[in-house]
Formats: sequence, structure tokens, C-alpha cells
Amino acid sequence: MNSSASIVKTILADRHPHPRIEKGVAFAPANIALCKYWGKRDTVLNLPVTNSLSLSMGQYGATTEIACINQPLDQISLNGVLLLDNNLPFVKRIRSFLDCLRMTDNRHAQSTPITTDTRFSVKTQMNLPVGAGLASSSCGFAALVKALDVLFGWQLPLKALSILARLGSGSACRSLWTGFVEWEKGERSDGMDSYGVALPEEWPGLKMGLWILDPNPKPLSSREAMLRTVGTSPFYSAWSSLVEGDLKALKSAIALKDFEQLGATLEANACSLHGLMMSARPPILYSTDRTLKAIHQIREARKQGLSIYFTQDAGPNLKLFFLDSSQAKIEEYFPDIHIISPWEV
Amino acid sequence: MNSSASIVKTILADRHPHPRIEKGVAFAPANIALCKYWGKRDTVLNLPVTNSLSLSMGQYGATTEIACINQPLDQISLNGVLLLDNNLPFVKRIRSFLDCLRMTDNRHAQSTPITTDTRFSVKTQMNLPVGAGLASSSCGFAALVKALDVLFGWQLPLKALSILARLGSGSACRSLWTGFVEWEKGERSDGMDSYGVALPEEWPGLKMGLWILDPNPKPLSSREAMLRTVGTSPFYSAWSSLVEGDLKALKSAIALKDFEQLGATLEANACSLHGLMMSARPPILYSTDRTLKAIHQIREARKQGLSIYFTQDAGPNLKLFFLDSSQAKIEEYFPDIHIISPWEV
Repeated sequence: MNSSASIVKTILADRHPHPRIEKGVAFAPANIALCKYWGKRDTVLNLPVTNSLSLSMGQYGATTEIACINQPLDQISLNGVLLLDNNLPFVKRIRSFLDCLRMTDNRHAQSTPITTDTRFSVKTQMNLPVGAGLASSSCGFAALVKALDVLFGWQLPLKALSILARLGSGSACRSLWTGFVEWEKGERSDGMDSYGVALPEEWPGLKMGLWILDPNPKPLSSREAMLRTVGTSPFYSAWSSLVEGDLKALKSAIALKDFEQLGATLEANACSLHGLMMSARPPILYSTDRTLKAIHQIREARKQGLSIYFTQDAGPNLKLFFLDSSQAKIEEYFPDIHIISPWEV
Repeated sequence: MNSSASIVKTILADRHPHPRIEKGVAFAPANIALCKYWGKRDTVLNLPVTNSLSLSMGQYGATTEIACINQPLDQISLNGVLLLDNNLPFVKRIRSFLDCLRMTDNRHAQSTPITTDTRFSVKTQMNLPVGAGLASSSCGFAALVKALDVLFGWQLPLKALSILARLGSGSACRSLWTGFVEWEKGERSDGMDSYGVALPEEWPGLKMGLWILDPNPKPLSSREAMLRTVGTSPFYSAWSSLVEGDLKALKSAIALKDFEQLGATLEANACSLHGLMMSARPPILYSTDRTLKAIHQIREARKQGLSIYFTQDAGPNLKLFFLDSSQAKIEEYFPDIHIISPWEV
């Protein structure tokens, strides 16, 4: 039985008792995949079919404060608003993650005093639009496990926190580090070898531009879209080898600081992902007219000599990549983008 | 040696002498693929990797008038304008097709007095925007071979004319008939078994709506796009089996007059094709912001109960499909579309 609860139990098994503090607070950056994660080999443990590679978003992400409370229910708030609707996906997912913790009961009562009766207050502040394909669940779960680690003094290695975060949301396992992170898919059925690994390279001159074209929540969650793609797309069988090739090209581009190769590969990877989704039955289309207008503007700017590339996740918004040497021109061409320095933390 | 010229020679080999008339005039409808043709197994003879299935566009297509002239060069005109630029793709393709005819020289001098010195006047009138992904080359070459058949009195069967038209432009082989036409890919390397076959079913209640979102010529020809897709897309290996499934679903929908199945399948097939192109390297994107806006409007109308589906070819424009029973509502929702009755000829 490889339930999420049993994995949590395994990870927390050797944690030594530690005085519990009042509350744990932690920040985790959001991350944007340069090579996308799409498709699970285990939907319960969030084990992916392929590796993936991301870049963290600097100061943009989630700050989570967690504490134990004497209440009948967990109290979950987002950006200062207490979420009372238990059917909200955000609430349900955090609560079911906390349920896994509660199921570690008894056996770990000595080390981490969590019982089935423990209730939590989880206050999350995000400086990103929620649910707009901006990887908000990734930073949310990463910040949550970091905050829990502080609260209970587990002092878990980042690798273990990465596995815990993955149980909440797959891509969250890449949000424990700054910079480039590769999510190793792993081979084991219990997922203990499926976690993020930080790449050694830093590239402070590499900038990200957030282009929010539609801040509304997406009509189809990436979880559902992933399931439909894997279940119905005739192209999915080719996705693994596509990812393998793109990862190789991206890692060599990062090692050589070859921006053109990095940009062309990450853009092609995103287009392939959206093409893959369009081949699902019924087709999945996250792009809106604004997305397409923006994409054609980017391509036009590139024709005019500007070195800029985009990626797109499960939503209508775009993330641009460019070098700081062209930042002034980029700001002129794209006045609406929000510029992010991934290494400024 | 399977050059186009040798195929033309083969087809014309047994044609009996026939008094040549002054000029040949013929009309051929454009056709819209419900299951797309994408990828060639022979780029010279335009032999496809898969079968495909189309619906003709009623009175919309090309009318071509052809005559022999005493001039040093062919005179090719389109919609009343004599095309003097020999580098125009339209001119080059028609001329190289006529070259194949001229190469039949001598051997067929008795039956069809064409020599290497024969020059033609080719006047084409199209009632469709040229080059906007509206299958203008398909009706153009079909009308041309029909006009030649009249001019020289070949009295070739439609199957042979279909093969001749295919040599000019692949999808032209489906434009020799009204209604549903399947292009049999064939197996032979000389392509003599690769031609259109009309389906017996008529469906007069089925309407087409032409939604021209951008009448400008497309930036990348479908020939080039096809080559790039086949050469670089990791998804292309799955295209054949996808087409097989869609053809089966479409033909059963046509046999049963099941409009929902027809619509859902043709729309999914088009989305899969555009997804496939997006996975080419570099990605191919024919959609503009207008295309996406229109697609979302169609999906929204469908949510509101309107039974309407779209397809999209190598360009930004859409073709809608609906039943005459919903025509009044369709005209209300989509005032910009041009409605076509495929069986009104």
C-alpha cells in the first residue's frame, strides 16, 4: 500500500523529538517549467511519467504560516481571507495533505505530537495570481511543508521535503530551491526516488517576464487536463522521448549559457505541450485570443532582432525569457510584463 | 523513374485521337477536409501517408478556361489578372504541371497534339479568397485537368483526372466530385492507386459556414508546413493511427447521419492537426488571435445548446458545420459567416 499517508509516515519515521514552537513560517518560490511535467505514472503519489526542469521565480511565491489550533476544523486562509467553503479545491487539497500527517498518529506521537485530532491554522500569502496557470499550487505546497518542518523541528533534508511537497502537488517538489531544478521521475513504486534536484549552475543575467493576459481561474484544472491527455491523446506515447531530447538540449544550454538554445527549446517544449493537449479528445485549449496575440507579438519582436522566448503552462498567461542585456528594449516592446529576477531572493 | 511526366504519359497513353476544340472550360468545387491530409510518402507524386476525407464546397471553387496559344510563354491569369511574375508559386506550379504535359511530346502527337513547343493560356476564376487556407489550389488543379480533358477530348474517367489533379496539388484529387470524397492513399510507388473515391451518401441538410478571419496569404505554405512537420515532429509517428480512427468515426457518422459524431470528430481531427504542427521544430502556428476568439465563441455557443463544429486548415480561417435546422440561429450568432450548401451545385 503506497498511500500518501504511508509515505509521510516513512519520511517522518526517524525524526527525533524536538520542542515544538508556536508556529512555523516559510517561503517557497513558484517555479516555471522550462521542460514541462505532463502525465502521471501514479496519480495518488503524483509520480510523473518523465523528468522535468524548472526555474524558480525569485521572490515570487508563497509564504505560509502554520500553527496547531484548538478548533474542530482546520482553518485555511489565502491572502488574508479565511476560506470557509470546504469544497474549494485549494481547501480540499491542503486538508487532505494534512490528513496524511494526522494519519501518522501514535507511532510518531513521541517525536512529532500529531494525532488524528490535531487541527491546523494554515495562512498562505501569495504574491502571484491564484489559479491562472502561474504555478501557485507548486509554491503553496512547498511553503507548507517547509513551514511544517519549522513548526515541528523535523529538520528534514530538502530532498525529503521535496517528496512531501510532491504528495500535495507534483510540481511543488521543484519549489524547494532557487534556480534551475530538475524533478527526477524516479523508478520506485513508492516514489522515494522522485524528487527535485537543484542544478549547480547560476545564471543571474537570465530574466523572466510575467505576462498576465487573463487573471481569471482556468476553466479546466491541470490535473484534469493531464488525465484527459494521458487517457485520450494518440500523441502521448511520443511525449517521453520528446521530453528526453528537450531536457538534454536545455541542460546543455544552461551549462554553456547558450541563451538562444535555451529559449528555442523551452518555447518549442511549451508549444509541443499545448499541441499535445489539443490532440486530447475532446481537445484542450488553454490559449485565448489574447494569448495568441501575445505569441505573435513575441515572434514579431524576434524577427526584428530581439532575443526573447516564451513558455505557457495550463492557462492563458505567458512567461517570457530574456537576458538582462536586452531588458530595456523588452520593457519598451512589452510594457505590460512584470519582470522577475530568478536569482534575486 | 516515377516522375510526374511519366505518370501523365501513362494516363494519356490510350487516349484516342479527338478533334481539338478551341478551348476547354470546366468548374471544380473547392473541398474542405473533415479528416486532414498531412504528410507525403512521395513529395514528387504527392502521395500521402494516410487516407483523408473531404466535403466539396458546392458552387464555390474554380472555373478554368484553357486554350493553346502562339506565344513564347504560357499566359496564366487569376481572377482576370494576367500573372507576369514567373516566380509566383501559383504560376510556377501550373507551369510545371503543363511541362509534364509537354513532355508527353511525340509519342502522343497523334492522339493529343501537344509538343514541347505547345503554350497555353490558362484563365482561372475563383470565388474564394486565394491562399488563405481555403483550398484554392485544390479546386484550381481539379478545374485545370477537367478543362484540359475538354480541350483535348481525352474523355478520361474521373479516377484518372483525379490522379492528374493530384500531381498538381495533393488535395485537388478530391475536387472532382460533389459531396464526400475519400482520397485513397494507395500503396503503389507510381501512385496509380492514389485517387479520390466519392462516398455514396448525400446529406443535403448539412451546411458549411465559411468564417474568413484573415484574408491575407498565409506566411508558410502548407507544402512547407507539411515537410517540417513530417521531418521534425515527434508526434508524427502517431498521426496515421489517429487518422484511421477518425476516418472510421466520420464514415460511420455519415452513414448514420449522426451530426454530433461527425462534428465532434472533424473538430477533434482539426485540433489534432494543429497540435501536431505546434509540435514541429520550430513550431508552426496558423491561428491568430481572431482564430482563437472565434473558436472560443463556437465553444461557447455549443455550451448554450447550439450544435456547431469547426475545422481549420493551414491558415487562420475557420469552416463551420451545422444542420439546416439550426441555420437561423447560426446566422444570428455568427453574422459574419458565409453559408454554403455543399449539395447545391
